[in-house]
Amino acid sequence: MPAPVLDFWFDFASTYSYLAAMRIGPLAERADVRVRFRPFLLGPIFKAQGWTTSPFNLYPAKGRNMWRDLERSCADLQLAFRRPDPFPQNSLLAARVALAGLDQTWGEGFCRALFCAEFADGCRIDDAAAIGNILAKLKIDSEPALAAAQSDDIKTRLRAQTDEAQRLGLFGAPSFTTADGELFWGNDRLEPALRWATGAPISTAAEPS
Amino acid sequence: MPAPVLDFWFDFASTYSYLAAMRIGPLAERADVRVRFRPFLLGPIFKAQGWTTSPFNLYPAKGRNMWRDLERSCADLQLAFRRPDPFPQNSLLAARVALAGLDQTWGEGFCRALFCAEFADGCRIDDAAAIGNILAKLKIDSEPALAAAQSDDIKTRLRAQTDEAQRLGLFGAPSFTTADGELFWGNDRLEPALRWATGAPISTAAEPS
Repeated sequence: MPAPVLDFWFDFASTYSYLAAMRIGPLAERADVRVRFRPFLLGPIFKAQGWTTSPFNLYPAKGRNMWRDLERSCADLQLAFRRPDPFPQNSLLAARVALAGLDQTWGEGFCRALFCAEFADGCRIDDAAAIGNILAKLKIDSEPALAAAQSDDIKTRLRAQTDEAQRLGLFGAPSFTTADGELFWGNDRLEPALRWATGAPISTAAEPS
Repeated sequence: MPAPVLDFWFDFASTYSYLAAMRIGPLAERADVRVRFRPFLLGPIFKAQGWTTSPFNLYPAKGRNMWRDLERSCADLQLAFRRPDPFPQNSLLAARVALAGLDQTWGEGFCRALFCAEFADGCRIDDAAAIGNILAKLKIDSEPALAAAQSDDIKTRLRAQTDEAQRLGLFGAPSFTTADGELFWGNDRLEPALRWATGAPISTAAEPS
């Protein structure tokens, strides 16, 4: 039997997507679930909700707590953390490069490296030079990678991926979707999403004792 | 040495506060943490953010996912679940009764029973008759309880509690605060908040391997 599939939806600008991207590999392997990395853009989805920037900027108390929570969570997970400036970073080019890489063998490694550059090292990720540096460290030839990323094919596919995210009801990142139509939102839902994907029995609702 | 203290902030209208209220007792006991139940009102805090109702109503995609997630989470936790109508319920009287009960011995039991009436049975919680029923089931004399709840002292203290929540930076419920000033938001943060309260060592941030 083929391994069950879980779609992992993320935006490179999203803080908790960093945590999910760093955690998902080993957890999925242990659960015997095949993960598909699906970069998309939150911008159009936020815009449809009337937001012009991250809700963490729009709601300062929520934003302050998010940064502190991220700091605590990274310490727990032994992940480095440095806040990028500005926040959110423009993730358009990074998402296009990731899509190009996912057609080849280096997509997932690039995604992790990109997230680390942004949230572990606090670097900008919004231009070709920054992304070229990340590719160079991964020993990937940056010229063809960036050319593929700027092709009409990739541009169209990234738009289609974002449209699909919206159709699936996504409203934030990271999110996880299963073949049978479940949507799980947030890094905290990674484990339940993997459990669901494997069809592990979910207890039936019962009266609390 | 006295047990460390964790403040548990909740609004009776809040769906994830139901889960936290049902989980916190045994978890805190195992962690040897003393929990203080602190009902407050989200309404004034939402209003300050420009929201006139729950964000789950304002943002339909978020709301749909919350109800489905709650259903899945309740099944996992073997908690019954029925969606109350309307949502959110007006939680003012319930919060006042809870404060009165927390002065005596029946406060925490009342909080759990109230949450179950609302989210396990789907009952309304917004009037004296509904709350009287809950008190009756707990064998608490409802007349003096409701009289105390409507006293100026309790009304003032609930307002002060909500003001304090706002001062502490709370923006949603459930939330947990520690003596050393940490704020944890959401049912998912109950375990980390308890760990923090006990002073369990948090790993220092390190480069991901």
